[in-house]
Amino acid sequence: MVYKFSNMKYVPLLVFQLILMILYFIFVRYGGDKHHDIRGFEDTHVMIFIGFGFLMTFLKKYCYSALGFNWFLAALVVQWALLCQSFYHMEDNIIYITKKSLLEADIMSATVLITFGALLGVASGTQLLFIAIIETAIACLNMWLVSNVFKAADVGGSIAIHTFGAYFGLGVSWALRPRKATPTDSTPSVDLNGPSYTSDVTAMIGSIFLWIYWPSFNSGLTNSNAEYQRAIINTYLSLAAATVTTFVLSSSVSKHAGKLDMVHIQNSTLAGGVAVGSVCNMHISAGGAIAIGIGAGILSVLGYTFLTPKLTNFGIIDTCGVNNLHGMPGILSGLLSILFAALATSHGYGKELEGIFEEMKQDGTGRSSGNQALYQLLALAVTLGISIVGGIITGALAKMPVFVPLKDTEKYDDEVNWELP
Amino acid sequence: MVYKFSNMKYVPLLVFQLILMILYFIFVRYGGDKHHDIRGFEDTHVMIFIGFGFLMTFLKKYCYSALGFNWFLAALVVQWALLCQSFYHMEDNIIYITKKSLLEADIMSATVLITFGALLGVASGTQLLFIAIIETAIACLNMWLVSNVFKAADVGGSIAIHTFGAYFGLGVSWALRPRKATPTDSTPSVDLNGPSYTSDVTAMIGSIFLWIYWPSFNSGLTNSNAEYQRAIINTYLSLAAATVTTFVLSSSVSKHAGKLDMVHIQNSTLAGGVAVGSVCNMHISAGGAIAIGIGAGILSVLGYTFLTPKLTNFGIIDTCGVNNLHGMPGILSGLLSILFAALATSHGYGKELEGIFEEMKQDGTGRSSGNQALYQLLALAVTLGISIVGGIITGALAKMPVFVPLKDTEKYDDEVNWELP
Amino acid sequence: MVYKFSNMKYVPLLVFQLILMILYFIFVRYGGDKHHDIRGFEDTHVMIFIGFGFLMTFLKKYCYSALGFNWFLAALVVQWALLCQSFYHMEDNIIYITKKSLLEADIMSATVLITFGALLGVASGTQLLFIAIIETAIACLNMWLVSNVFKAADVGGSIAIHTFGAYFGLGVSWALRPRKATPTDSTPSVDLNGPSYTSDVTAMIGSIFLWIYWPSFNSGLTNSNAEYQRAIINTYLSLAAATVTTFVLSSSVSKHAGKLDMVHIQNSTLAGGVAVGSVCNMHISAGGAIAIGIGAGILSVLGYTFLTPKLTNFGIIDTCGVNNLHGMPGILSGLLSILFAALATSHGYGKELEGIFEEMKQDGTGRSSGNQALYQLLALAVTLGISIVGGIITGALAKMPVFVPLKDTEKYDDEVNWELP
Repeated sequence: MVYKFSNMKYVPLLVFQLILMILYFIFVRYGGDKHHDIRGFEDTHVMIFIGFGFLMTFLKKYCYSALGFNWFLAALVVQWALLCQSFYHMEDNIIYITKKSLLEADIMSATVLITFGALLGVASGTQLLFIAIIETAIACLNMWLVSNVFKAADVGGSIAIHTFGAYFGLGVSWALRPRKATPTDSTPSVDLNGPSYTSDVTAMIGSIFLWIYWPSFNSGLTNSNAEYQRAIINTYLSLAAATVTTFVLSSSVSKHAGKLDMVHIQNSTLAGGVAVGSVCNMHISAGGAIAIGIGAGILSVLGYTFLTPKLTNFGIIDTCGVNNLHGMPGILSGLLSILFAALATSHGYGKELEGIFEEMKQDGTGRSSGNQALYQLLALAVTLGISIVGGIITGALAKMPVFVPLKDTEKYDDEVNWELP
Repeated sequence: MVYKFSNMKYVPLLVFQLILMILYFIFVRYGGDKHHDIRGFEDTHVMIFIGFGFLMTFLKKYCYSALGFNWFLAALVVQWALLCQSFYHMEDNIIYITKKSLLEADIMSATVLITFGALLGVASGTQLLFIAIIETAIACLNMWLVSNVFKAADVGGSIAIHTFGAYFGLGVSWALRPRKATPTDSTPSVDLNGPSYTSDVTAMIGSIFLWIYWPSFNSGLTNSNAEYQRAIINTYLSLAAATVTTFVLSSSVSKHAGKLDMVHIQNSTLAGGVAVGSVCNMHISAGGAIAIGIGAGILSVLGYTFLTPKLTNFGIIDTCGVNNLHGMPGILSGLLSILFAALATSHGYGKELEGIFEEMKQDGTGRSSGNQALYQLLALAVTLGISIVGGIITGALAKMPVFVPLKDTEKYDDEVNWELP
Repeated sequence: MVYKFSNMKYVPLLVFQLILMILYFIFVRYGGDKHHDIRGFEDTHVMIFIGFGFLMTFLKKYCYSALGFNWFLAALVVQWALLCQSFYHMEDNIIYITKKSLLEADIMSATVLITFGALLGVASGTQLLFIAIIETAIACLNMWLVSNVFKAADVGGSIAIHTFGAYFGLGVSWALRPRKATPTDSTPSVDLNGPSYTSDVTAMIGSIFLWIYWPSFNSGLTNSNAEYQRAIINTYLSLAAATVTTFVLSSSVSKHAGKLDMVHIQNSTLAGGVAVGSVCNMHISAGGAIAIGIGAGILSVLGYTFLTPKLTNFGIIDTCGVNNLHGMPGILSGLLSILFAALATSHGYGKELEGIFEEMKQDGTGRSSGNQALYQLLALAVTLGISIVGGIITGALAKMPVFVPLKDTEKYDDEVNWELP
């Protein structure tokens, strides 16, 4: 039998997989036997693999790649992220793995998938995998700064996951922009850069599952029952309000007789989950959650309508519009976290205060609310800085011929990567 | 930058959303910090948004509208239903919101989506939203009568949700019937009133997810572990038996050599979950659950085959056949609840009796089983009355030009509402 | 009204359903009121009905049959399996049904669906249902031998479910092989034996949901929190590693410039879940779980590439390639269970030892690790023997004209069984 190993382009990934295996053998042991009853794990799992995967199938001839690379990237990143995240919490050079740390790795992989959304159809498989490995390491460093150095509150990851992933992606996209500045020239396969009737329907599978389990995502890492319930309620209300707002606004900004635009429906409906993420466990009130959702829906639909075309002209392709779904709503959430940190009092929060803002103490020792607000600002600013700079550098590296960048005629096309029927 | 707000048709909904926000600010506070570990919430969530949404994608050119309006309606209704339901349980003019009350609002939104099923493709977006807002208020009133006044047992909501939603929808449908009585004339876009191969497959996503999580739906509001487990087991067995029965019968009533009909498979398989709903926490025995499922399957398939054509001739369009999936099986469940209430004894139920039949006491004080049976009958009769009358009046109002009814040529067609690829 | 019962082919199934009902009335009672908080039930439910159902929609014109028969078979088998399994555990001729026994019945139905995968498109509906009923009885007998007689460890069912289902299916397939040996002659509808772009996307719904909930499947029947968490972690890591390996290898063995093959992506990614199944609750170490996943991915992709064509030439059609997804990885898992049983010490496992290996005692009484290893071998060998012989005999019986075998021109075609749009 003659083995037909005709192509080696992904073989370095197998080497990386083997290195991961060896690192796990050396450093990883099973953690405590406490039954971490974290349902958020299974729900987040659905979001990562079904949610992100199917959301990105909206392109008419890129469904295989959307689903396939989403899966490939996430399966690699969860293993790698678990090591990168745990690196900062090792005890005697040992990493104790638990269901909770798996959940954290799942959440981290969302960062990479958001970046993938910006690059959908324009980056090659090898580029994506290279970017994913680098981004994971940088994002875990940033996460450590946000959580463990600045001790900022960011329970749903709107700062460290959504904002980071979006602006890292835009940074890469800008670095990868084609040399010819004219956007028309740079997208000859522009006829493939759009949906079909069927692909828009399969994209809704992803969108709706993301929407459904977003409350589980935002509440997965809460520390008490009260916090957990508040995170569920606030996220749910914000999403519902963003959805209503998105439908109304999509019809209003439409060019044709009030028709709805599937791009808004698939994406801006979710902006409510991002915008409430960093503050969903705080006392924002149910009405406040709805207000945040309304604001997120408006911000996101207007972003798709007015801002995305400008970014494209500027050379920043953002295929899924992650700036409108994750980026700007993520910044909004960061700003809200500054506001609600500044308003936080031990009177209002009682013994919950330390669970939400680690460095503020119920007895008044520890950080003041003003100080906490500054640290929230710092977390947002550092995240923006690291993600943009990191993205641009990573994108510049990814342009190297060894990563086989796509030709213009190969963009948005499964043909390059798949045996098609 | 010139804002292109070209169309205002949904803007009143944004006003309604803002009113909801204000009402939440004034009346709603976070409820107790007890961790209501209600997994039924997430599962029901999947049923509402994926289940109902995809089930209704079976029409070949109405998939966007099915998914979109399902989402739009449900996102609006959950916010509104939470207020309407809690209105009857306010303490000092404050509504305490919990994960459980979110679940109840989710369940209530099923009512509106069942009604949507009857009207699929024949009502405009503005009509649907108007109907949804009115129906939610009426259905919450009826729910209060059933649960808090009559104290009827209806754990899975087969009376107050399924029966109500179905007959409200048929009432609206009758009121909206076109003036020309000839059914052929009234449906010129009749060629769009049918499935494609692909749309029937996506509809199965909805159907199977509804089926899978129906045990969670029926058991979500049980009061004890024994009740919970019984509700799971009975619902599961009834669904399984209804499924087998549906396949056999669909083949038997077929016109062509025993071929199966996707309409039956997508819908009648679920009738077992409806028919067992009101009694699933009672001592109906495992064999009884299977018998109910067999009966529901027979009732539903025969309904599709023989009754739906007659209703259409009578001017009642029922696009999804909700009468066969929710209506008649819901009435069956109501009748079964009369039977099993009449058979209930404190000997048989022990200390569980009060958990299931609120007004019956283990020590014999409180309602007799005969009395409880009468109240079950009353709940069913009042539900039928309010839903039919309410539906007809709401439908008559929805015919007003302000709600932009569809022309015959616009029916079953996404073109009216969506920017299509 | 004249009833149009034109076809009776499935009516015996309704009789069987009625017999099941009677058996449930006689023998089944509700089990203890302990709230078995088994989320694995709902997750496994998704795997059985969405996972297996959609995975098999990859054929271009067999989607209705894949989803429909998957549902029909599973709904029948769960009822039947619950009786067959509980038969060996009756108390005073009474079967006590619980949420846990429903979960076990769900798991058992996977066996039949794996077999269905081998026969997809080549067996008629009546043949499939006949095979399912016989197979369930035999598989429950084998399960009883493995669990209760040999007391072998097989928590994820890789021996008793996956290996059994795969080789039973191959046995049936061999028995059903067409008389003319030339494979070309035997598959005239060969143009239907392949995917379309859309059907490959819907198949991914099934594949990814199977992948997502596999940790729940493997951990569903664990006995302690430590075991549960280990099963989750090991299954997850093995799946992730198998996924990465599958992508790399699929590209490497490709005929065309490193293109990926959807058959591998949909199936071999899951082999990691099977290969780790029997040992996922043991101390295999996180690195070990990754190693198993890598091995499973390699085994499965190479199986599809080199072995499946040979089996087809030998007359064994295996439409979904269950040998590569369930069969060989299942055997691998069985062999691993021999290895890890042989390595098990009371020092390493402590008080968990008895939970995992029922007959090994912490104090050294009971089976030695060598003995346990022999029983693991026995379980694997007996499973292979019973499944292959049982499959061949069942297949031979299923060839009888009463089960209406398909003509060659009817294979892989929904037209035979469904009213198509």
